[in-house]
Amino acid sequence: MLLYYLDLAGVAVFAASGVLAARDRELDLFGVIIVATLTAIGGGTLRDLLLGHHPIFWIVDNWYLITIVASALATVAYLALRPPPGMLFLVADACGLALFAMSGAKLALEAGLSPLIAVIMGTMTGVVGGMLRDVITARVPLVLQKEIYATAAMAGILVYLVLDALGVPETPAFTTGVAVVITLRIIAIRWGLNLPSLPHRRPK
Amino acid sequence: MLLYYLDLAGVAVFAASGVLAARDRELDLFGVIIVATLTAIGGGTLRDLLLGHHPIFWIVDNWYLITIVASALATVAYLALRPPPGMLFLVADACGLALFAMSGAKLALEAGLSPLIAVIMGTMTGVVGGMLRDVITARVPLVLQKEIYATAAMAGILVYLVLDALGVPETPAFTTGVAVVITLRIIAIRWGLNLPSLPHRRPK
Amino acid sequence: MLLYYLDLAGVAVFAASGVLAARDRELDLFGVIIVATLTAIGGGTLRDLLLGHHPIFWIVDNWYLITIVASALATVAYLALRPPPGMLFLVADACGLALFAMSGAKLALEAGLSPLIAVIMGTMTGVVGGMLRDVITARVPLVLQKEIYATAAMAGILVYLVLDALGVPETPAFTTGVAVVITLRIIAIRWGLNLPSLPHRRPK
Repeated sequence: MLLYYLDLAGVAVFAASGVLAARDRELDLFGVIIVATLTAIGGGTLRDLLLGHHPIFWIVDNWYLITIVASALATVAYLALRPPPGMLFLVADACGLALFAMSGAKLALEAGLSPLIAVIMGTMTGVVGGMLRDVITARVPLVLQKEIYATAAMAGILVYLVLDALGVPETPAFTTGVAVVITLRIIAIRWGLNLPSLPHRRPK
Repeated sequence: MLLYYLDLAGVAVFAASGVLAARDRELDLFGVIIVATLTAIGGGTLRDLLLGHHPIFWIVDNWYLITIVASALATVAYLALRPPPGMLFLVADACGLALFAMSGAKLALEAGLSPLIAVIMGTMTGVVGGMLRDVITARVPLVLQKEIYATAAMAGILVYLVLDALGVPETPAFTTGVAVVITLRIIAIRWGLNLPSLPHRRPK
Repeated sequence: MLLYYLDLAGVAVFAASGVLAARDRELDLFGVIIVATLTAIGGGTLRDLLLGHHPIFWIVDNWYLITIVASALATVAYLALRPPPGMLFLVADACGLALFAMSGAKLALEAGLSPLIAVIMGTMTGVVGGMLRDVITARVPLVLQKEIYATAAMAGILVYLVLDALGVPETPAFTTGVAVVITLRIIAIRWGLNLPSLPHRRPK
């Protein structure tokens, strides 16, 4: 039940991040809503397809699509009134990443899969929507940039898995995982934290 | 039965549009057939995957692939003889969009899903093949351009759903929906009709 | 059983080819492992999804992911010590293509599908991982270049299907198919073999 509302929240913030990414791309209102929708449902759809989990979450529950359109229109209205605060896009993206990473991991665990798969599944669920958004709006995908991104999702999922294994109840374990991802992303953005690059020689 | 032949027709025109999009991209005959195939089966494959509808339509019925290869080769032969009329690509694309949008909507209805999902599913089925084609051949996707595109698919699907709800028999309802999409696309191309863009401030 | 080890080998060489493609793209170690993973599991995942073959191969068997990470780290370590031999990337890619093309064809046959679908399915399984790798690392996909590529996969699959139909036992038939693909790819790379391009007129 909690998961359901957090999932709707994830869908709403990813939809908003899609609108923010699309706003200077000369799309019509419709194109903007399409980008918002793909961003919002991309990760969860891949998760359900890979787990063979039919029907796909948004196909039988109209609240997901209604939330996406409402969130997208609200963001469009907001942008018509005033320019967005500088970090808004990155914060919306961080919240979506955190909520989806955790829900992907939780679903994998509930399907009886190994912790390794829960980490992979959660990370995929978290990053795929944003990756689609960035490819469609011709940005360098956040996930491929040098800042900690997928690693933040993984760290949060690991914290959640460990708390769960220690017997901590679902709600605080899940919420702590979400908080870890958001905190790591904000630290990474603020102080430019990143993992070491792959060493390579430039061609001479 | 009618649907089956219309589906084959959709596959044939989308295959042709794939060849037309690929023709000045220095691909070999094989690459051209791959682009034609992805364009022709992309939307329907996603539709079947999302609906959990196995086996996927082209996997158990070889006529789809045979139609695609025949249509692609005929288009290649035609192009070898004379340059294509200017609008051919856009008209082939409009017909493919119309046929696939309607068949996606019809399958969703038959699976007992809500009209909202029928609209989404139909629109996706219609636009995804062309989107793959445009991404692979490095064009700006038609669906993201300012002209009415996905909106045309949606309008046709809505007309079909309303006629269906009013008790109009399947065949005329379906055909009217197809005609609405094609007409709207041709009007949009001819007179440059489009939806309003998202307002945005340019950075100063 | 043989197929299982060959599948792991395919995953390992495709993971290595992903690292080689990613090495001058300024990715962190994590991004490199993501590219390696997508390259290694992309084709097989699409194969399983299209065949409705759940659970997906890497979801219930952790050895696939372990092999990918081990192969990726070994390649990274190797690259840190010395520059790779010039052809290494193309050879790793040719081996992955061969192994996956054949395993995709074999699975389709075992699912009782037609030889035509076995060819399509095998070719897809072989080319999709490398295509994802090339798109993500912003290269022109090998499959769309003029050299024989998908055709090599198809030729190997055809040889395998013919040997199988003639009653040749599984292991030599499969291995011969793999050898045909690798040989054709190496000949194509070495002597620049290619299929004729689609004729087209340049705009004047």
